[in-house]
Amino acid sequence: MSDQAPYREKTKTAMLAIAERIIAEEGLPAIQARRIAREADCAVGTLYNIFTSLDDLIIAVNARTLTALGDKLAEARDASKDADLAARLMALALAYLRFATVHQKPWRAVFEHHMSEGREVPAWYREAQDHLFALVEQVLADRLPDQLARRRAARALFSAVHGIVAISLDHKLGQFDAAETEAQVRFIVGAASRGLAQAD
Amino acid sequence: MSDQAPYREKTKTAMLAIAERIIAEEGLPAIQARRIAREADCAVGTLYNIFTSLDDLIIAVNARTLTALGDKLAEARDASKDADLAARLMALALAYLRFATVHQKPWRAVFEHHMSEGREVPAWYREAQDHLFALVEQVLADRLPDQLARRRAARALFSAVHGIVAISLDHKLGQFDAAETEAQVRFIVGAASRGLAQAD
Repeated sequence: MSDQAPYREKTKTAMLAIAERIIAEEGLPAIQARRIAREADCAVGTLYNIFTSLDDLIIAVNARTLTALGDKLAEARDASKDADLAARLMALALAYLRFATVHQKPWRAVFEHHMSEGREVPAWYREAQDHLFALVEQVLADRLPDQLARRRAARALFSAVHGIVAISLDHKLGQFDAAETEAQVRFIVGAASRGLAQAD
Repeated sequence: MSDQAPYREKTKTAMLAIAERIIAEEGLPAIQARRIAREADCAVGTLYNIFTSLDDLIIAVNARTLTALGDKLAEARDASKDADLAARLMALALAYLRFATVHQKPWRAVFEHHMSEGREVPAWYREAQDHLFALVEQVLADRLPDQLARRRAARALFSAVHGIVAISLDHKLGQFDAAETEAQVRFIVGAASRGLAQAD
């Protein structure tokens, strides 16, 4: 029994690394319990013993992606701390675009993954998501002292930039055009910033 | 031979109706060639004979969804024709939100579907997508006479609203909250409109 805990931890770490590599190289649709178990050199039952479900394993990988994205957004927030609101929002938006472009498959997996019918994402995962919005809220703090308005604006801005990046990277409007995508992000963040400066 | 064409047309129409119903009721992941053939009372080979690939059948259904969405956006454009730019953009954005909320699964299928590796969506489908952006461009015509700027702004606004609606409907930030989603759409379109009025 005393050997079980280290084996379990070691296998968990190995499975996470395998799932992370598969998502990075091939994307979420390539994730299969059987394949991960085989590459980790154990039975499929062991995977379900450790992670309960494939959802839990995917969420663990997606949480790492959220953390990495949060680190980049926090860098942009810190690097722009002496700039005006428009420049700070732009710095965050361009950091988001850059992250999504460089880590396209893991980033896409965060939005592509849906829990199996009837299951909810765990609270700790939701907190990891909220942390991203909080970064935008911090930048808006001076302009929007009201908490509800700030929260709403942060989510709207985040989602707006996400929509532009997602549709562009999806080639939904033709081939991906990095310069055009950046120009669209600059347009929406610029216009919204001017609008925000004027509001009330 | 003379009976083949009517049979082909009839089967095609039946398969389209079946695929449309499955997407509307169960969503894109429920689409399977075997099931559609079975419900259309023919062999799987007949499906591939008529549609070449499952992609082509899905695209045909998604094109109908784009047409229905375009009709709603055109209604909003026409109904708001005497209003100012901000009100017109808002009318289009809220029509988009309403369509996505009411026709959630078909709307989601448009964005969830990706062509098989190495295949491109046909030009006629891309034109159907462009038609949606053109509706936004028409509303921006007076404010942005420059074609490139207008095209860019239309796509950015469309994608921004799409991002808010998509993230909200995905429950990516908790349960879907219709009032909060509308408030976020109003925030981004309102701020962007004020910013647009100020631009140059």
